[in-house]
Amino acid sequence: MKSLLVVGSGLLGTSAALAARRAGWLVWIEDRDPQAQALAVDLSGAAAGPPSEDPDLCLVCVPPDATGGVLAARSYLHLNTTVSDVASIKTKPLREAEILGADPARLVGGHPMAGREIGGARGARADLFEGRPWVLTPGAAERSRVDLVRELALACGALPVEMGARAHDEAVALVSHAPQVVASLAAARLAGAPDGSIRLAGQGLRDVTRIAASDPGLWTQILAANSPALRAVLADLRDDLDSVLTALDTLAEEPAAEPGSGPDQPDRIPAARGGAEARAVVADLLERGRTGRGRIPGKHGAPAQPYAVVSVVVDDRPGELARIFNEAGALGVNIEDLSIEHSPGQDVGLVELAVAPAAAEALRADLRARGWRVHE
Amino acid sequence: MKSLLVVGSGLLGTSAALAARRAGWLVWIEDRDPQAQALAVDLSGAAAGPPSEDPDLCLVCVPPDATGGVLAARSYLHLNTTVSDVASIKTKPLREAEILGADPARLVGGHPMAGREIGGARGARADLFEGRPWVLTPGAAERSRVDLVRELALACGALPVEMGARAHDEAVALVSHAPQVVASLAAARLAGAPDGSIRLAGQGLRDVTRIAASDPGLWTQILAANSPALRAVLADLRDDLDSVLTALDTLAEEPAAEPGSGPDQPDRIPAARGGAEARAVVADLLERGRTGRGRIPGKHGAPAQPYAVVSVVVDDRPGELARIFNEAGALGVNIEDLSIEHSPGQDVGLVELAVAPAAAEALRADLRARGWRVHE
Repeated sequence: MKSLLVVGSGLLGTSAALAARRAGWLVWIEDRDPQAQALAVDLSGAAAGPPSEDPDLCLVCVPPDATGGVLAARSYLHLNTTVSDVASIKTKPLREAEILGADPARLVGGHPMAGREIGGARGARADLFEGRPWVLTPGAAERSRVDLVRELALACGALPVEMGARAHDEAVALVSHAPQVVASLAAARLAGAPDGSIRLAGQGLRDVTRIAASDPGLWTQILAANSPALRAVLADLRDDLDSVLTALDTLAEEPAAEPGSGPDQPDRIPAARGGAEARAVVADLLERGRTGRGRIPGKHGAPAQPYAVVSVVVDDRPGELARIFNEAGALGVNIEDLSIEHSPGQDVGLVELAVAPAAAEALRADLRARGWRVHE
Repeated sequence: MKSLLVVGSGLLGTSAALAARRAGWLVWIEDRDPQAQALAVDLSGAAAGPPSEDPDLCLVCVPPDATGGVLAARSYLHLNTTVSDVASIKTKPLREAEILGADPARLVGGHPMAGREIGGARGARADLFEGRPWVLTPGAAERSRVDLVRELALACGALPVEMGARAHDEAVALVSHAPQVVASLAAARLAGAPDGSIRLAGQGLRDVTRIAASDPGLWTQILAANSPALRAVLADLRDDLDSVLTALDTLAEEPAAEPGSGPDQPDRIPAARGGAEARAVVADLLERGRTGRGRIPGKHGAPAQPYAVVSVVVDDRPGELARIFNEAGALGVNIEDLSIEHSPGQDVGLVELAVAPAAAEALRADLRARGWRVHE
């Protein structure tokens, strides 16, 4: 039975204690705040630390600014224990730990990429790490020590990923820290805005600014600790922003409409006289944004499906879908995916059939011949 | 029975046709693309335009660049019809419409604040506008014309809000257009990033960048048309970004840890030697961001509840919640709200009872006296 001492009873520490216990580890939890420790002990079922003997692994789950010091202290206190942590940045706390005398052979940096909006032990969940990457930065640690931390990550249901501390910090600057700054920049514009403007807010603004509700104290520590990598990302971002601002300056001087493109040409778009280059700058940012967005893994970032879509309008009555499936089956066309769009108060729905591109035209023709309303 | 002609069969046009039909209006829909028009007619149940007589209202639902021209054209084609639109910016298309000869007395700008990720008629829903603001910018329109558009907005389940075109454009620059740019700026950083970095992405990045998946063509039109108001918001945002960049430059030079804060003081945070002012700059942005985020209406922006919270650890077995409620009832304490945190594999759950602040201490003491594990 492996033994684990968790130091720090916040969201990550208490969740790790829960998950490790569930996986059969022997677990203690400590916090310098006795009230917080008591809650975490009650919620996790772990024993109150310190243990009477040195544990196999000590997982330091304290705020980023404190991580280096506590790693070093625990390396001294438990002389044969592997020490690891969960801080969102790696270079700075690990360097601090080594400056303060931590044993590099026993020191394995770690960062489980998990969290939730409810902080503290009260938000803890045994499944918090399920399916999430758990980055390990082994540095000069012995292989058996690294494997022990991998074992904990796997016991928690996470996916261990080994990388260098600097590579980790550059990656999180990009996928986590710069987005945090950007969310705060957008949200800060609302701090002094008129009520009449804010009541027009919609879901887009809510999504962009959701993480701006995060704890400023914790995030100041994170952003400050990752300043070298973060400033590189934000400097590139500022260059893009400057280009857009210059383009908007040009566009603000564009004439309202082209003289002479009169009402005798009803649906004609009045061409912009100037500003074509400025528009291209704006369009380029939006295009690159869409490309970048498309690279994010997960359901929203899934690659576009390779099927052709056949759209059929169906009446809102029983049996219509079965009829379409029968027609497709008779033609030997396999329906790979299906979506139905139907809104309240609508007498018809739109069924979109994803089929092999080669089969789409024949299916459309067949369905039309049998009286279905088929659209491209 | 009021009559409505919808020009343009995209998401908003087809949704308005659906909603107006459901509310009993007589509705036609037109699109210069015959395929798109056929789909919208099929899906909405509206008649194919043009109508044989002038309708009461013509709602122009074409891209922003085309809106001014089509408003003017429809003002000529239907000589007693009220003309309105749904474009996301108001000053520029309305000015264009007037330059092109639209009758200002019959011209009511409009902007329903609704949308979804599925564009085109296929995404149309009769309930798309339900509960959403529908901004009206009456300008010099006759009151009866404004009231007709209000009637349509109400028929669609929306909340009509009257304001000036310029005030509208400043508001949407803040709550919609600047957030769009910000999402694209963050997402554009990912376009050329290493795969190893992107696989660390989590929900925060997905939320910040969700709207960066929007149509670049449409959004270039919107951002370009609102350049005067948008550049003002983005210039302020850039000032904040510049301050943060300067602060990060300072912090990147900060020493790793304070010499002498050794491992003899285990849980001591190594104090940052320099950079306190720089940290304050970062913290200030995060604080203002949190303040701004808190002002957004909706479930995420609801004000903090005024109750005190009593946290009780309960065993995961039937009847425990009923016992707590009985104890509280016997004490005369009303439980205003309740949340339960319980994760798989956990033998206990945390029940948080929201009660009047004055009653909290007595309830805690009572529950403790009866053997419950109560936390602050």
